[in-house]
Amino acid sequence: MVRGTLHVVGVGPGDPDLMTLRAVKTLQGVPVVAYFCRHDTQGHARRIAQAHIAATTQEIRLAYPFTTEISVKDPSYHTDMHAFYDRCAEDLAAVLEEGRDVALLCEGDPFLYGSAMYLFDRLHTRFETQVVPGISAMSGCWSQAARPMTHGDDVLCVLPATMPEEALAHWLDKADAAVVMKIGRNMPKLRKALEQTGRLPDAVYVERGTQPEARCLPFAEQEGPAPYFSLALVPGRKGVR
Amino acid sequence: MVRGTLHVVGVGPGDPDLMTLRAVKTLQGVPVVAYFCRHDTQGHARRIAQAHIAATTQEIRLAYPFTTEISVKDPSYHTDMHAFYDRCAEDLAAVLEEGRDVALLCEGDPFLYGSAMYLFDRLHTRFETQVVPGISAMSGCWSQAARPMTHGDDVLCVLPATMPEEALAHWLDKADAAVVMKIGRNMPKLRKALEQTGRLPDAVYVERGTQPEARCLPFAEQEGPAPYFSLALVPGRKGVR
Ligand SMILES: C[S@@+](CC[C@H](N)C(=O)[O-])C[C@H]1O[C@@H](n2cnc3c(N)ncnc32)[C@H](O)[C@@H]1O
Ligand SMILES: C[S@@+](CC[C@H](N)C(=O)[O-])C[C@H]1O[C@@H](n2cnc3c(N)ncnc32)[C@H](O)[C@@H]1O
Repeated sequence: MVRGTLHVVGVGPGDPDLMTLRAVKTLQGVPVVAYFCRHDTQGHARRIAQAHIAATTQEIRLAYPFTTEISVKDPSYHTDMHAFYDRCAEDLAAVLEEGRDVALLCEGDPFLYGSAMYLFDRLHTRFETQVVPGISAMSGCWSQAARPMTHGDDVLCVLPATMPEEALAHWLDKADAAVVMKIGRNMPKLRKALEQTGRLPDAVYVERGTQPEARCLPFAEQEGPAPYFSLALVPGRKGVR
Repeated sequence: MVRGTLHVVGVGPGDPDLMTLRAVKTLQGVPVVAYFCRHDTQGHARRIAQAHIAATTQEIRLAYPFTTEISVKDPSYHTDMHAFYDRCAEDLAAVLEEGRDVALLCEGDPFLYGSAMYLFDRLHTRFETQVVPGISAMSGCWSQAARPMTHGDDVLCVLPATMPEEALAHWLDKADAAVVMKIGRNMPKLRKALEQTGRLPDAVYVERGTQPEARCLPFAEQEGPAPYFSLALVPGRKGVR
């Protein structure tokens, strides 16, 4: 029997119209879609793709084992996540072995900090795999914020706010343009790093970019905590506004 | 009279199916499209959007003043380009003043080294402006090359190969993951910087990614010159393949 193909499909940052034609065609052509979610929610990627999933399409929910966030510093986090991704990969492998194609949904672009990569890593040597790029959260956010990011030979650094404060400050100092992902609980640390490097006045804060509840404001004016779906933009030094 | 809106529309890296639904809807809704091109060619972005431009749509070709590449080191380059962008902005402004909307096409994502930014910079204070993000060349290329780029807290640096060799080597050494854009005539310099930093074995070369003539191979195996539409990918250090 011919084995199925795994399609890893980027669905963009939130606005369903930011899906590509290829993502839509892929979803219309597969019998099975899979997506990560929390036990109690539908899943962000699934919600974005809603209009293109037929009622007859089989859905595989990959529900994270934690309902509240466990700190990545907790040693059990990595063991548990590893085992979770192993199980998810086996669930998809079982369907692919039956000769059915699967589309694994991923918010933004799959290969930019996407959890879909952990399943790709486990399955791409066993099955035919196709990756459909998606509009990344950063592209969606800088477009909505109307901030050109890199001109000429500006260097752009994409930084996860999970790194230590000194490392963040180091990179913010060196980069011409920067995007800081995964703000959430790292907000106070990021604010300090931006202040310390003199980059706070130019920084823009974007929360739930391209979604109906999007907020976009100077970073200095953002008070209080930040949700998981937020990022900071520091446009390039050579940017002419 | 109500002035027109300028839509800056990313059309992705080459495969027309990598256009977003929003890009397609925008092109179907405007009376005028504009795009950069060389005197003798149709223009890359125009070719990608071909299927979505009606015969009745007015087209404004913004033809670069040079048919062969002038070195950016030539002082006249900057003056000439500045004057050229000024003229282009005035051409679009004239149409917008008449109350007609214009879609300015841009390959990849407009705000990532896109020339459309130079017109955005000149027009956004005078006219209502909307930016439609596009799949960037790097997203298209790493998806086609099937290389997950950033896991966990990997830092991604996007580097233009136009910078000096030592600067390139410096960044390649520090970055977890890197993308090097604008290879073209900078190929020999880039090869040296990759060798020198020990990153050559992991680097991937992608030429005309997502286009019918795409080539994708280990960087070390790419011999000879590189065209303008090429980039290098160095996946993150924490990537598990
Ligand atoms: C696990 S990463 C996934 C990134 C995604 N694969 C991409 O291409 O952008 C999650 C982070 O992406 C950012 N993010 C995703 N969607 C967003 C949105 N709509 N607005 C702002 N930030 C977003 C946040 O920084 C969030 O912490
Ligand atoms: C002026 S920049 C424009 C980048 C574009 N706005 C983006 O979002 O990727 C041009 C550079 O993009 C890269 N590029 C654009 N399209 C490409 C493709 N299809 N394959 C490989 N590289 C490409 C090349 O490095 C080229 O020198």
